[in-house]
Amino acid sequence: MKNKTEERNKKVVVIGGGTGTFTVLSGLKRYPVDLTAVVTMADDGGSTGRLRDEFGVLPPGDLRQCLVALSEADQVMRKLFNYRFTKGELSGHNFGNIFISTLEQVTGSLDQSLDVAGKILNIRGRVIPVTLSKVDLVAELKNGKVLHGESALSDYQLVSRFGIKKIFLKPAAKANPKALAAIKEADLIVVGPGNLYASLIPNFLVSGVGRALAASKAKKVYVTNLMNKNGHTDDFVVSDYVHVLEEAIGKSGIFDAVVYNTKKPDKALVRKYADEGEPVLCGPDCMKEKFALIGTSLLADGLAKTARTAKTDSVRRTLIRHDPEKLAKVLMQLLGK
Amino acid sequence: MKNKTEERNKKVVVIGGGTGTFTVLSGLKRYPVDLTAVVTMADDGGSTGRLRDEFGVLPPGDLRQCLVALSEADQVMRKLFNYRFTKGELSGHNFGNIFISTLEQVTGSLDQSLDVAGKILNIRGRVIPVTLSKVDLVAELKNGKVLHGESALSDYQLVSRFGIKKIFLKPAAKANPKALAAIKEADLIVVGPGNLYASLIPNFLVSGVGRALAASKAKKVYVTNLMNKNGHTDDFVVSDYVHVLEEAIGKSGIFDAVVYNTKKPDKALVRKYADEGEPVLCGPDCMKEKFALIGTSLLADGLAKTARTAKTDSVRRTLIRHDPEKLAKVLMQLLGK
Repeated sequence: MKNKTEERNKKVVVIGGGTGTFTVLSGLKRYPVDLTAVVTMADDGGSTGRLRDEFGVLPPGDLRQCLVALSEADQVMRKLFNYRFTKGELSGHNFGNIFISTLEQVTGSLDQSLDVAGKILNIRGRVIPVTLSKVDLVAELKNGKVLHGESALSDYQLVSRFGIKKIFLKPAAKANPKALAAIKEADLIVVGPGNLYASLIPNFLVSGVGRALAASKAKKVYVTNLMNKNGHTDDFVVSDYVHVLEEAIGKSGIFDAVVYNTKKPDKALVRKYADEGEPVLCGPDCMKEKFALIGTSLLADGLAKTARTAKTDSVRRTLIRHDPEKLAKVLMQLLGK
Repeated sequence: MKNKTEERNKKVVVIGGGTGTFTVLSGLKRYPVDLTAVVTMADDGGSTGRLRDEFGVLPPGDLRQCLVALSEADQVMRKLFNYRFTKGELSGHNFGNIFISTLEQVTGSLDQSLDVAGKILNIRGRVIPVTLSKVDLVAELKNGKVLHGESALSDYQLVSRFGIKKIFLKPAAKANPKALAAIKEADLIVVGPGNLYASLIPNFLVSGVGRALAASKAKKVYVTNLMNKNGHTDDFVVSDYVHVLEEAIGKSGIFDAVVYNTKKPDKALVRKYADEGEPVLCGPDCMKEKFALIGTSLLADGLAKTARTAKTDSVRRTLIRHDPEKLAKVLMQLLGK
C-alpha cells in the first residue's frame, strides 16, 4: 500500500508580492506541485492606489500579478489582465486591477472576485491575500519622520538619508485564515525574492503570519534579491536580508535554506542601475550562518522578457531579473523532487 | 430520410441595438434557435463615446448589451459586464464597455474581442457588429442644422422643433460580411423594437444591409415600439414606423409581419413619461397595410426588471417595457415553432 502523502502533489506556498513572486510562480507552475501564493496587501501606489482611494477596495495589483503568473489561459487573457492604459482618463490604470476591483464591488467580496478572475484566467493554484483588512504600510525613519503608504517608501533618497527605524501596518491587520491554513499545510514555503520592505515584510506585519510560518513543518526557503535597493538595503549582503526578515517574522534561524545568485550581472547593466542599487553579494561571513546556503546562477539572460509582464504600476523596471526556470529548478530540488 | 433543413435549429437574426434588442434576445435565447444579433455601431454617447474618443475603438455599448442578453454565465458575470461606475474618475463608465474596448486594443480586432467576451459570458448565439467601419450618425434637420453623432439626436426639443430631414453615416460604412451572411441565411429576421433613428435605422444606413435584407428568404418581422419618442416619432402610428424603416431599407412592403402591443400601459406611468412620448397606437388605417398585423399584449407587468440591466449609458430609463417572454412567444409562432 502506498503512503497517502506520497500520492498527493507537494504543497508549495510562495509568500511575497510584486515581480519577484511573479517570477517564482511562473517557474514553479510548470511542475506538478500544489501552488499557493500568499500575497501582501499593503500596496497603495499607481493604479492600485487610485482604485483604493476611489472605491475603498483592497489593493488588487499584487494579486493580479500572481493570477497572471499562474494563468494557463491563452496569451490574450494574460495580456488583457496586464494591459496598461496609456491614453485618456484611464491612463496609468491596469485593466486587471480594474477587473478585480470591480468584481470585488459587484460581489462584495475580494475572495469571490479572485475566484471568478482565477477561473477566467484558468489559474493553476491559488492566490490568497495575506489579510482582508484594509491597511497602510507606515515607516518611521530614524529622524522621526513618518512615511505613510508603501508608495512613500519609494522616495529612496529620503529613506536612504535617514534610514528606516520601524515599519508597521496601520491599523493592525488580522491574518486571512486561508493564508494561515496554507502556511500550516505547506511542504515548502518560499519567501522572496522581492522588495524587502515593500513586498516581503508587509506579509509578516500581519498578526499571526510570522507565528504560523515558525510553526509550520514546511521546509522554509528565502530567495535573496539580485540587487540591493538604495535607501532600503544599501550594502546589504545575503545574511543582512535574512536577519531583517527574521526580525519581522519574530524568530531567528527560521530558514532551512537561503538561495542566492552567484552570477554577476552584465557590468553595463549594473552601471545603468547604479542609482537603484548594487548586486547582492554573499558577504565575508555568510558561510558561517546556520541555514544551508545555496549559491548558483539564477540570472535571466539578456533583457528579461518578464520585464514587460511585470508590475506595471511601478515607474521604473530593473532589467536584471531572476530566471524563472533556473529558480524553480533549485526550489524543486529543495522540495526533494 | 429526414430533410436536413428540418434537423437544424432555425436561424433567427435580430437587427437593432439598445434595450429593445436586449429584450428580444433575452426572450428568444430560451428557445432552441440559432440566434444572431446584428448590432448598430453608431453610438457615441456616455461611456461608449468616451472610449471611442480616447482609444479610437469601435462603439462597445450596444454589443455589450447583446452579449449580456445572450449570456448563460452566472449572475455575477452578467452583473459585472453591466456594472456602471458611480464614483471617481471611472464614474459613468460601464465595466463591460471597458472590457470590450480594452480587448479590442489588446487583440487589435473587435471580432476577436467579441469572441473572447462571448466565451467568458458563455453566450448562446452570436453578436455581430453591422459594420467594422468607424462611423458617426449625422442628422440634417429641416431647418438646415446638422447634428453630428447619435447622442446629438437625444436633444429632442431641438429635433422636435425642426424635424429630421435626412439621416446618414459619415463616412459611408461598409457592411460586415458576417452580418450580410447571417441575414442571407436567416429563417426569421426581427427588426426592433428600438429607437427608430438611433438604434434601428443606423443598421440600414450601412451599405448593403438593406439590400441583403430585401434579398433574404427569411420571414421578416418588425416589432413596433411601445412608446413614441418626442422629437423623433411624434404622433407616429404603427404604419409610420414601418414606412420610415422601409425608406431606410430601400424597399417598401418588406415586412411579412408587424407586431405591436395592444395593452395600454398604466395611466400614471404614461403621464410620468409624457414629455418623452405617448403610447404607439395602431392608427385608423393600419389594418389596410399589406403586412400581417399582429396586435397583442406585449407589456411587461409593473416596473420592468430589465430596467436595471438595460442600456446603462442613457441618462433616463423608461419603465414601460416589452415583456421578453410574451414577445419571444409571438416571434416563435411566426417562425412556425
